[in-house]
Amino acid sequence: VPDLQRLILRHPSGTTPIVVGRGALAETMADLAAWVAERTLFVVSTPRVLELHGEAIGGLDSTAHRTVVLEVEEGEAAKTLQRAGKLWQQMLQDGGKRDSRLLTFGGGSVGDLGGFVAGCFLRGIDYVQLPTTVLAQVDASVGGKTAVDLPAAKNSVGLFHHPAMVVSEIDFLSTLPAPELRSGLVEIIKMALLLDPLLFEQTEADVGALLAGDPAALVRAVAAGAAAKIRVVEADPEEGGQRGLLNFGHTLGHALESVLSYRGLRHGEAVAYGMLFALRLAERRGLEPSLSQRVRRLLERLDLPPLPEVAVEELVEAMGRDKKVRESGRIWVLPAGLGEGRMVRDVASEEVSGDLEAFLSAPFSPT
Amino acid sequence: VPDLQRLILRHPSGTTPIVVGRGALAETMADLAAWVAERTLFVVSTPRVLELHGEAIGGLDSTAHRTVVLEVEEGEAAKTLQRAGKLWQQMLQDGGKRDSRLLTFGGGSVGDLGGFVAGCFLRGIDYVQLPTTVLAQVDASVGGKTAVDLPAAKNSVGLFHHPAMVVSEIDFLSTLPAPELRSGLVEIIKMALLLDPLLFEQTEADVGALLAGDPAALVRAVAAGAAAKIRVVEADPEEGGQRGLLNFGHTLGHALESVLSYRGLRHGEAVAYGMLFALRLAERRGLEPSLSQRVRRLLERLDLPPLPEVAVEELVEAMGRDKKVRESGRIWVLPAGLGEGRMVRDVASEEVSGDLEAFLSAPFSPT
Repeated sequence: VPDLQRLILRHPSGTTPIVVGRGALAETMADLAAWVAERTLFVVSTPRVLELHGEAIGGLDSTAHRTVVLEVEEGEAAKTLQRAGKLWQQMLQDGGKRDSRLLTFGGGSVGDLGGFVAGCFLRGIDYVQLPTTVLAQVDASVGGKTAVDLPAAKNSVGLFHHPAMVVSEIDFLSTLPAPELRSGLVEIIKMALLLDPLLFEQTEADVGALLAGDPAALVRAVAAGAAAKIRVVEADPEEGGQRGLLNFGHTLGHALESVLSYRGLRHGEAVAYGMLFALRLAERRGLEPSLSQRVRRLLERLDLPPLPEVAVEELVEAMGRDKKVRESGRIWVLPAGLGEGRMVRDVASEEVSGDLEAFLSAPFSPT
Repeated sequence: VPDLQRLILRHPSGTTPIVVGRGALAETMADLAAWVAERTLFVVSTPRVLELHGEAIGGLDSTAHRTVVLEVEEGEAAKTLQRAGKLWQQMLQDGGKRDSRLLTFGGGSVGDLGGFVAGCFLRGIDYVQLPTTVLAQVDASVGGKTAVDLPAAKNSVGLFHHPAMVVSEIDFLSTLPAPELRSGLVEIIKMALLLDPLLFEQTEADVGALLAGDPAALVRAVAAGAAAKIRVVEADPEEGGQRGLLNFGHTLGHALESVLSYRGLRHGEAVAYGMLFALRLAERRGLEPSLSQRVRRLLERLDLPPLPEVAVEELVEAMGRDKKVRESGRIWVLPAGLGEGRMVRDVASEEVSGDLEAFLSAPFSPT
């Protein structure tokens, strides 16, 4: 595996180069500098990311007409309509035009918010994603999804707006706190289990190195995870079918996050618990116990924080609000084998609510 | 000219049938009923439109799973981010899903807001436009533009989201107040002058009948205007070039609206004054005075309300905030002949501010 991989995502509005690796930013700096030349550049980022890595994008100042930094809150807290509204106001005041540029520089929340802001400002301006977490590099930055949250449901307002480029600089991951790294690995395991048996085996072998932040292991895992996601997104750009597979673990995961008001568990950690619950449903539908045990063992290696106390009824209600529910009912994504997922409609709400109590008290146990 | 015309708009995300005429709604009712079958239908409309014409869409209740009416303010006042946020909240509470449907039923503001709400709800749901004003039928509903306003600039937040169908029922125009009818005719004159000499001559001949609300004249003018707009939009779906021609009159028009806080002049009336000003710039660049006099005479027939008092400096400042300004500078759209428009970059801001004083005191005079 080379230090740098150039991937391409083809989508209905064009193509997005996705550059993953050590030195990805240096490698693409000339392209980025040309892209911002003579334009106003808006940088959506957090104080923390700017302090740790702001210097790395300093080179853009020399070609941009001017650079306007838009600081936002860390994490999900930034993804509100109010925050988006304030950014738009500020961009107008600072002379933003249709040919201005926007760079998202941070984790998944910064990318989701910044992409939404770019997508709706003057009916859409070009943007580039510079994701700084594993989660954002492997998942959130790939596929053009943008969104903010409403109090009633996460990601409920947004649009598909593909970035002009994604630059996934692996060296930025060196400053990630351990829980953030772990949260990102959950999404890699999720994609590996459903889409890529080789990546699953590689992750089993590499999990120690990945948790220790080993750059070579991270390049391998992030590039393979992003490539797996690209394949799914290209087959189903606007989530009509196969892209729904990526929601494995997210049904209960999103409900957990919502009930906990996005505090107490990170996104990936909540998804890990969602995967553990889905494994129980899958086992009842014929998933080999040896495989579900392998997944449990791998997730156990991540040393997740314990599941906070939550009420079954609240979880059930939150799942009903999830935007993936269609009028025709809820679809569960369940693993069917290594590298194989299935969309399942036959899960009665009684089975879910009946099983949740047992699951919440012992999430790593089989049914 | 038959009573009913079926037009088609081809755009990057598919095709939009646009049905214009007397009885257009009855003609398409079966299609609409199938489209909402078993779904939640959200109807974005105003109390006034619902009172006048609500019965006409009652037939949809029988096939929809349920109908949720979302009432919004009349006119530009509805086009705020706050209003959109409240609608999204309510749609979530009422069980809106990705396969729910939305119908905009009203004038251009209802269509702009409703289209934006549909475009961003759960990353986009299908919607149909049922425009009830000339302006909305001939212009706002054609081309997929959606938007809300920010305090600093109109239509500054939005996206391209094409409706599944547009149904322009000419019989709805019978209840339009005269100033609203007049405001719509301005946009028809605008498109005719730049794009369609025959429509211009037809409008000169029909202007009395149009102002009197004659249905046959309205079918002719609205269908021809919508067809002219379709040709421009198809050539330039996301306003990179030719579509900019439709901004004739809008540079000063938008600035007038903004300085007047969207009170005192309707959109079309403001655009009419914008066209009158642009004629002065065009005459200095060689437009035949006989043609500009024809345009002035036609606009005079509309009996516009007088231009409220506004300060030149405020207008100049508002024009600088317009979203059509690129970083490379402002482009003016000027008529070059009958059926011919031109994008002009050589208009110095000194010429504009120098000429505004004279124009404001005598808007119908030539230079």
